[in-house]
This record gives sequence, structure tokens and C-alpha cells, in this order.
Amino acid sequence: MFQSFEVTARPDQGPPRLARLRQELTAEGLAGFLVPRADAHQGEYVAAHDARLSWLTGFTGSAGFCAALGDVAGVFIDGRYRTQVKAQVALSDFTPVPWPEVQLADWLKDQLPQGGRIGFDPWLHSVAEIERTQTALAGSGIELMRCANLIDRIWDDQPAPPMFPVKAHPIEFAGETAESKCTRLAEGLRKAGHGAAAITLPDSIMWLLNIRGADIPRNPVAHGFAILHDDGRVDLFMAAEKLKDLGDHLGAGVTVHAPESFLDALAALHVPVRLDKGTAPQILADVLGDKAVYGEEPCALPKARKNAAEIAGAAEAHLRDGAAMVELLCWLDAQAPGTVSEIDVVSKLEDCRRRDNALQDISFETIAGTGPNGAIIHYRVTKETDARLENGQMIVLDSGGQYLDGTTDITRTIAIGEVGAEERHCFTLVLQGMIAVSRLRWPRGLAGRDLEGFGRMPLWLENKDFNHGLGHGVGAYLSVHEGPQRLSRLSEVPLEPGMILSNEPGYYREGAFGIRIENLIVAQEAPPLSDGDPERHMLNWRTLTYVPIDRRLVVVEMLSAAERAWLNEYHAQVAQLIGPRVTGAVRDWLDRATAPI
Amino acid sequence: MFQSFEVTARPDQGPPRLARLRQELTAEGLAGFLVPRADAHQGEYVAAHDARLSWLTGFTGSAGFCAALGDVAGVFIDGRYRTQVKAQVALSDFTPVPWPEVQLADWLKDQLPQGGRIGFDPWLHSVAEIERTQTALAGSGIELMRCANLIDRIWDDQPAPPMFPVKAHPIEFAGETAESKCTRLAEGLRKAGHGAAAITLPDSIMWLLNIRGADIPRNPVAHGFAILHDDGRVDLFMAAEKLKDLGDHLGAGVTVHAPESFLDALAALHVPVRLDKGTAPQILADVLGDKAVYGEEPCALPKARKNAAEIAGAAEAHLRDGAAMVELLCWLDAQAPGTVSEIDVVSKLEDCRRRDNALQDISFETIAGTGPNGAIIHYRVTKETDARLENGQMIVLDSGGQYLDGTTDITRTIAIGEVGAEERHCFTLVLQGMIAVSRLRWPRGLAGRDLEGFGRMPLWLENKDFNHGLGHGVGAYLSVHEGPQRLSRLSEVPLEPGMILSNEPGYYREGAFGIRIENLIVAQEAPPLSDGDPERHMLNWRTLTYVPIDRRLVVVEMLSAAERAWLNEYHAQVAQLIGPRVTGAVRDWLDRATAPI
Repeated sequence: MFQSFEVTARPDQGPPRLARLRQELTAEGLAGFLVPRADAHQGEYVAAHDARLSWLTGFTGSAGFCAALGDVAGVFIDGRYRTQVKAQVALSDFTPVPWPEVQLADWLKDQLPQGGRIGFDPWLHSVAEIERTQTALAGSGIELMRCANLIDRIWDDQPAPPMFPVKAHPIEFAGETAESKCTRLAEGLRKAGHGAAAITLPDSIMWLLNIRGADIPRNPVAHGFAILHDDGRVDLFMAAEKLKDLGDHLGAGVTVHAPESFLDALAALHVPVRLDKGTAPQILADVLGDKAVYGEEPCALPKARKNAAEIAGAAEAHLRDGAAMVELLCWLDAQAPGTVSEIDVVSKLEDCRRRDNALQDISFETIAGTGPNGAIIHYRVTKETDARLENGQMIVLDSGGQYLDGTTDITRTIAIGEVGAEERHCFTLVLQGMIAVSRLRWPRGLAGRDLEGFGRMPLWLENKDFNHGLGHGVGAYLSVHEGPQRLSRLSEVPLEPGMILSNEPGYYREGAFGIRIENLIVAQEAPPLSDGDPERHMLNWRTLTYVPIDRRLVVVEMLSAAERAWLNEYHAQVAQLIGPRVTGAVRDWLDRATAPI
Repeated sequence: MFQSFEVTARPDQGPPRLARLRQELTAEGLAGFLVPRADAHQGEYVAAHDARLSWLTGFTGSAGFCAALGDVAGVFIDGRYRTQVKAQVALSDFTPVPWPEVQLADWLKDQLPQGGRIGFDPWLHSVAEIERTQTALAGSGIELMRCANLIDRIWDDQPAPPMFPVKAHPIEFAGETAESKCTRLAEGLRKAGHGAAAITLPDSIMWLLNIRGADIPRNPVAHGFAILHDDGRVDLFMAAEKLKDLGDHLGAGVTVHAPESFLDALAALHVPVRLDKGTAPQILADVLGDKAVYGEEPCALPKARKNAAEIAGAAEAHLRDGAAMVELLCWLDAQAPGTVSEIDVVSKLEDCRRRDNALQDISFETIAGTGPNGAIIHYRVTKETDARLENGQMIVLDSGGQYLDGTTDITRTIAIGEVGAEERHCFTLVLQGMIAVSRLRWPRGLAGRDLEGFGRMPLWLENKDFNHGLGHGVGAYLSVHEGPQRLSRLSEVPLEPGMILSNEPGYYREGAFGIRIENLIVAQEAPPLSDGDPERHMLNWRTLTYVPIDRRLVVVEMLSAAERAWLNEYHAQVAQLIGPRVTGAVRDWLDRATAPI
């Protein structure tokens, strides 16, 4: 079992650790110290070694930071974690701060009107973050100061950094050799006049070199750093121990060095070195000085534009994963209301996914929230919160798998027994938004921002909405959350053929119910239409996810003819594509679940 | 009659004038000179005195510029004017350049590989424009050089600058005293730490001081400049002759100076002076030196957020204007196909608008394009192009009026006789987009960019689109095109209550037909809905324009139930609001035109 249901929050451990940290502050002459969730690689998940924020505060969310001062410790958390933080930290000693509504600099100015020095570990904060905060602090008498990591100093039983073997990612899934990728990207560096680029994001390094690791859960990545030179050569800074199974996969263009030599290697360069301001640790800018130039992370866009092999792999992974989901849904329908719990559902789903041995990992902790738990957007069930699925509830089931050929992410909302009219009405609004996005065709050049509203409009018309983005990028056997593209009002990155995104509108009524429906979709050149303007080059989506949408929750009369046709056509494809992959009772269930409405 | 149908393009006059300009280039030691369409006030229309671009080249479009070099003269024109420019300039001497696809700096680098000095009049180019071009020219050996206006030097019969009387704009239409506006804006300057702001946009000055002018056609503005000080005082730089009818309307807070003293007054200031980079002439930055600070044009947003009196005025102006449109539509329906021409329609429409003496001017040259002329987005009929309205055609009729209480802008596309199925199909797609936007409700904070797609989606689904924005801001008895808000993928200005915009999707098939349907709409706080989320604050539109949409062009089966209900409800409101303002046969026609479908 990948997923654990243990209660990880230990609010009582925070206060004594905070007291020890404050001793260090005094010893260093600091007014405070910043403890971010992030590690040096700015990913969504961190290794146990890097879980400093949760060690200090108890808060386990995937984003945020603590600003620990002499007499107050602010835990900055975004909208997703307002409820969770209160259960996880000792509120006697830690003060939740709504972020980004309250910015660190403003909070510091309020707390330290007399000024003071705030320590930070320059490996754990990006250049942009430090620059922004320093600018905002100008004239306040508060100064950010590089220092050693004070948490590492006091964390006696800190786990060692992860050290798991790296494997080659086969060309049939990668679709392009590492050599070709390095050559292609090096040309971009030369065009920009940059002699090299520092790469600090693990999934960029994995993609570039066609390797996969196991250093952190749910993401097949290994920690390390790389320098891509403008002639296509790569210096890889990664423990040799991790690489011993690789043979000669890396090839002559890649030289392996100890991770500890990364900064010295940067310092020794005598060319302009590209850093991505948003993700490069501040210490890289410090070491490079005026050799640092800022630009796009060189792998981000090329990685986001999946090639034909990656798209074919993703499609196959989704059918395999879809069959497992269908098996789970069939099983769930056979359980009487009140007889199974959220943990039962999560466990059974992981069983279904594991059945054919292709599953490498789940792609994130399954969210299974029934009734009111469904309204908690990032709910993770534990033994303490585990609830039975009762008649009249809906369960939100958001999960995914990591397969060698692709990463999946799917949400279905499922009726338990007889569900009320209000819930079905809201479910149908969410479905209409999801269908509107699926049906889109749009002119090249538009970004997620330009299209996101289509997934919300049916809700907007009823003065409803949901507090998360419509969709995120997804990797190819890499991170389930991958940039730079998003279906979000914050995203101005033009959508391009090959980009895989989620389409996941929702609706949440606190204390009552939640709804989310999610398919993965990939942008492609839209096929021409005989009556269309021939000169207009448009894109549309190819759907990757094929799993029934719960027909019992659809209010058919609310659908337009086009929406109804889309749903029936989608279900016909589900039956056709998943049917051959399931048997017996599951096949019978599938036929019923995909019948036209 | 406001509108003229004379042919204004005189391509033969350009070449000798260009030759004279080249003599000046030689005399000045310049490799070229820039001749923009813009005057010092960066408006859409210019006075005859400032029509330098059309005097030199023959091109009369509302945007663009000429870069006249020793052996080539590029006329930079945007997508709207690709066809028009070819008819208006002598192609032997002038070379149309597609802009902004080709940028001035890149074109200059191609033309002048050896480098050279390009003269420009620093009154006629904004700070941003010069900065952008200079940056792009860095290292090319091409230099921009301030110089006297060489066109003014060779234009022997250049008309004098306009000198028309300014009138007070009554408080019942303005809704806020000039004193209150100045006090309010001065507070914004103080908060930003700016001692003063230079105001160079005529409609900003008109709005701020509650005055209206007559210096340029179609826009009730007077040319001048102003300095708003952070204590609310205003220095107005405008010919005293224009102001003699104003009495003491301007009040003690406003001091009038000769326009010629504007630069000296700026130079004499010893405080940070705000300039709007996008509209302030470069010469202001030159004079201010390091006292110049850049920020938002102080009047732009406050002017865009119409107050209750301005909205009430706009609504009333639209009903008055709507009655005139209905009279025209009734008359047009009574004419047999093949018996009237585009000029007849424009003339009749102006007659209808003039009927009740409230019309101050038309708000722009009426666009009346029948059949293939309808596909020319900015068509202006002349005696040469005038076409008869033939059976089976549609005519696009885009027009508006300037009234003391508001500015109108409306487009209807009208069937002439029996119109074919393809045209009706496309008309219905355009209508669906227009209805989708009208029905919207959206969360506060979204911009035009986030909403524009709704007006295009029905076309997109058929691989169709149109090459203009969905909508523009509209002034209150001011410019019919007013920023900063727009319904455009280029607009990131959040929509706010009180902003008036046009909603005008279209579809154009070159050589065949055009379609455009336009209503003006004003953003407002959306009324709460009993089943909506009470904590979400949303906006929606109030419609201002009430004129029938041609039911004969609607393919009813294509409409969803909600779209059909919107159209019938809209027509019921048209009947109710316009009905009492027309009589006899027009009233009967209106009843038929607004019957439910």
C-alpha cells in the first residue's frame, strides 16, 4: 500500500522545537528565521530530510512557510489550508497568517517596527522571492540575512537526504533521445547569448536526461543539479551511488560530479549563466554574481509540449488506469450505503490499480471525501477523519497513478444511494462547465486565462464558483502538477499542441457536500472543418481520460442538446475503449453506466 | 448633415509632397522623418491642422504612421486598413507595411544597415513609443533625433489649429462637480507621493473640469493641456478665446494660461510630476528630466467608472437614439430591394437622429455596408463606393449619436429581401456570442481578457472568428472609444461597476457579406440570487441599447432554450421601452419586429 492513513499532525511537538530555535536566534543575533516548506528544488513534495516546516510547526500542507520571531511565529498558509492548519499546529505558539493576502514583508513590518535582521537559508528561497521581499522591506530597518539552516542545526534526528537508485527512461516512452534534447536546448541558449543554464528542478533534469528517480514519494525524480552548456554538454551533480544502475545510459555528453561541487562549478564558469528567477535558489545568484542572467527555465516549455510517443503513452496509461477506476466504481455500486468507509474506498482503489503490475506509484495521495468531507478541497483521509459513505451523500474521489508510459489524474463524484435534487442540480452545473471546456476549439495563441471562464460560467450564472484553478499541467511519468501551462486566470502561457492539462471544475458547500469532475485533456491542432474559415489555425482538445460520469447525478433537462450529445458520445467511447479491458460483472456494470441518457 | 460622402483620397498629391519632405531631410542631414497619425493628444480623431499623415500620404485611417526615408517611405498600417491603404496612397512612392507585425525598429534596421539619424517631432510621440523604439534600435547605428516638425515647415496651406468655444457640462449630466473630482484625484496623487500630474488627453480634461469642446469632429473635446496639483488646484493651458462663454464655471481652483506656456510651467515645478508613459508626449519627459515619474493617467479609471447620473443619462440617450434607429429600420423595411443605396440609408438615419434636436453630432462616421461592403470592418461609404441594397444581401449598419446626456454606438445587421441559409446560419452564431456576453455574471476582478471568449465561442466551434475586439469602452458625452477597459484579449484592466462597453461580435466573409451585432452594456453589481453563494460578489451587465435584432436572420433551431428566452425577453423590453416613443406605422412595425420567436 502506497498511501498511509496515519495521523501525522503532532501539534504538541511544535512549541519545544520553537523554543530551541529561539535560542539559536538569540545566539545568532537574529530577530527571526524563515522556515519554508520548499527544498532547494522548489517542488510540491519534499523528502523527509527537507520537511523542516512540518517538523517545526506540525503543518503538513504542500505550500507555505513559517516566520519565527522572538515572540511570535507566523505560519503563512494559502486558502486551501485555512482549516487544516488549525488542526495541525499548536495555536498557543503559532499564528496562522492568510497568505498571499498578507505578504511576508508587510507582516514583518507590523511585527518589527523597530527593525531587525531576519535569517534565511539561501538554498531554500528563490531569487525572485528574496528580491520581492527585500524590495518590499526597503526603508523598514528590517534586513534579510543569509545564514546556515538553523533547523538543521537543532533537528537531532533529521533523516538523511534521500538516496534511491535512478533508472533509465526508455526511448519508446520518452520519444526523443537525451542527446537530441540537449542539442535542441543548447541552440536556444546560444540564440539568447547564454553560455550555460543552471537547472535545479528535478523533473527538468529527469526529462532532459531521460532518467527517473525515486527520491521523493509520488514523483519519480531524483534530487540533483545540472549545468547545460551551450554546446549541449551537461554536468550532472548527483550522488554517484544513485546512478550505479544506469550503465552508460547517460552517454559521453554527460559528466557526473558530486552534488557538493555544484557551487564551485558555477563559480568557475566564465560565461553568462541563465537562471530562472522563480525557481533558482538565491545562493546560485550569489555565487554567479554578474555572470547570472535571467530567463526561462530551459526545459519547462519543451517538457510541457509532449511528443507523439509521450501522448500515445499517456493515452495508454489512461486506458489502463481507467479500467482500474471502472472496477472500483463497479465495486462501490455494489456496496450498500453505510457499509464502507473512505479508507475502504482508497484501499480498494489502490488494489484495483495494482492489479496489473504496471503501477509504479500513486501520483498523489488519493482524495476520498464523502458528504461534508467532499467540500474539503485537499482532503486526505486519516484514521481519525475516516467517514462511512451514507445514503444520500456524494463521494469526491480524486486520484491517479504513475506508470512508465504516463501519469494519470482523475476525479469522479459518485452518488451513494439516493441523492437529493440540490446536489444533482449542482453536479449538473459542474458537468456543464467540464463539457464546455472539453468541446472548445480556439485560435492559437490563447492562454489558460483566456479559456478558464468556460469551465465556470454555468456556476457563475447562478452566483456560484469554486476556489481553485480549473486545471493544471501534468507530466509524462513525472509530476502530476507540472508547469508552465495552467487553466487558470493566473496563466498567460499560450497553450500549445502536446500540452496535457486537467479539466476539473468543482463546487463545494462547506459542511454539506463537494463535487469535482476531472478529465485529463491534451491540446492538439484542431482538424479542419468543411464550413470553417480555412485560414484560421485553431487548437482543440483530445480527451485522455475514459471513465463513466455518474449518470444518476445528471439532471438531463438542464443539458442543451449539444451537451447531451457530448455526454452520450463520451460514454460510447468509454464503453468502446474500456469495455475490452474489463470482464464479467464489471463489463455489465460498464454497459449500464455508459448507456445513453 | 454631419457626414460627408466625398472621396477624400488623393493618391496623386503624395509623391510631390514626399519629394519636398526629402529636400528637408537632406538639408537637416537626416536619413528619415517620422510622420504619425497622432497629434499631441493621442486621440483617435485629429483636427485638420494635425492631419499630417493624410496630407503627406493620402492615407486617412485612424491609426498608423509613415517613416519617410531617402529612397523608401513605409506606411505602417494595422489589419483594419490593409485594403484601404492600397486605394489611398500612390504605391509607386509609398510602401504599405503590415503593423504591428513589422515593428518600426526592425524595418529601419533592414532599410538602413549603415545606420543614420531619424528625425521625430517630440510632441507627437509618446514616451513609451520612443523608449520602445530606442531600445530596439540599440547597437544598430540608427538614432532617433528630436527635431522641428518638417511637415509643418513644407505644408503651405496647413489649416490653423482648431479654435471652437468650450461649454459647461451641466451637473445633472456630469453627476459630480469638477471641484469634487479634482479633490478626489489630488488625494490619489498625494498617496503616490506625486506633487502634480500632467494631463494631455482632451477627454480627461473635459471630464475633470465638466466642460465640453468642439475642436475635432465627432468628439466633444477642446485641445489643451492641464496640470493637476496635489492640492486639487488645476492649471489649464488653453486659448482664452475658447473659454470666453464659460463665465465663472471653472471656479477659483482653475487658473487659465496660454497653451504656449505649458512647457515652461512644467519646467518651473519642483515636485515629482506624474506622466502617463503611454500617452504623454516625449517632450514632457525631456522638459521634466528627473522630476518625471510614471504612473496611471489620473483621470482614466475614474472617468471610466460612470456615476449614477452618467448611467441614467446614457440610458435615456440610448432610448432616444433607439427610437431614431427604429424609425430608420421601419423605413428601410418599406423600401423594395434595389431601390435605395448605402448613402440613402446613412442620410435617412442622420435625419431620424436629428428629428428631436437633442443630437449634438454623430459619434463617428456611420458604417453602412451592404453585401460585400459589409465585410469591410471600417467601411465608410463614398460617392464612388456607394452600392444599392439588393435582394438577398445583409447591410451592416454601425452608427451612434452624441447627446448631452450620453454617447451611443449601435450596430444592427438587416436582411434585404430574402437572405440565404448560410448567411442566416452565421448571423445566428454571432447572435449567440452576443447573447452569451449579455447573460454573463462573473466574479469581481476579472478583465475583458477573461470574458472575451464567450462572445466568440459559437464561431470558434465552427472554426470561424472575427478580426476585431469584442468591445470597447464608451464615454459619457465624450469619445465613443474610451479606455482603459475593453472586451479584448489585450485588456487586463479589471471590469468595475459603471464601466460602459460595447458588446459587438461579428463575422466577415471577404467579397461576400458581413455581420455585426452591437449593444452597449454597463457593468453593475449583480443582484443577489436566492440559490447563489451569498459570500460571492459578482458583477453582471445592464443593457443600454434597445433596438430590435432582425428576427428574419435568426435560425431558431440553433438557439438553446436560454438563448431563445433571452432574445424574447430583450424584444419584450424593446417594445416596452421604445414603444411609447414612436407612433403610427413605426409603432406597428416595432410590434411585429419584437414579437416572440
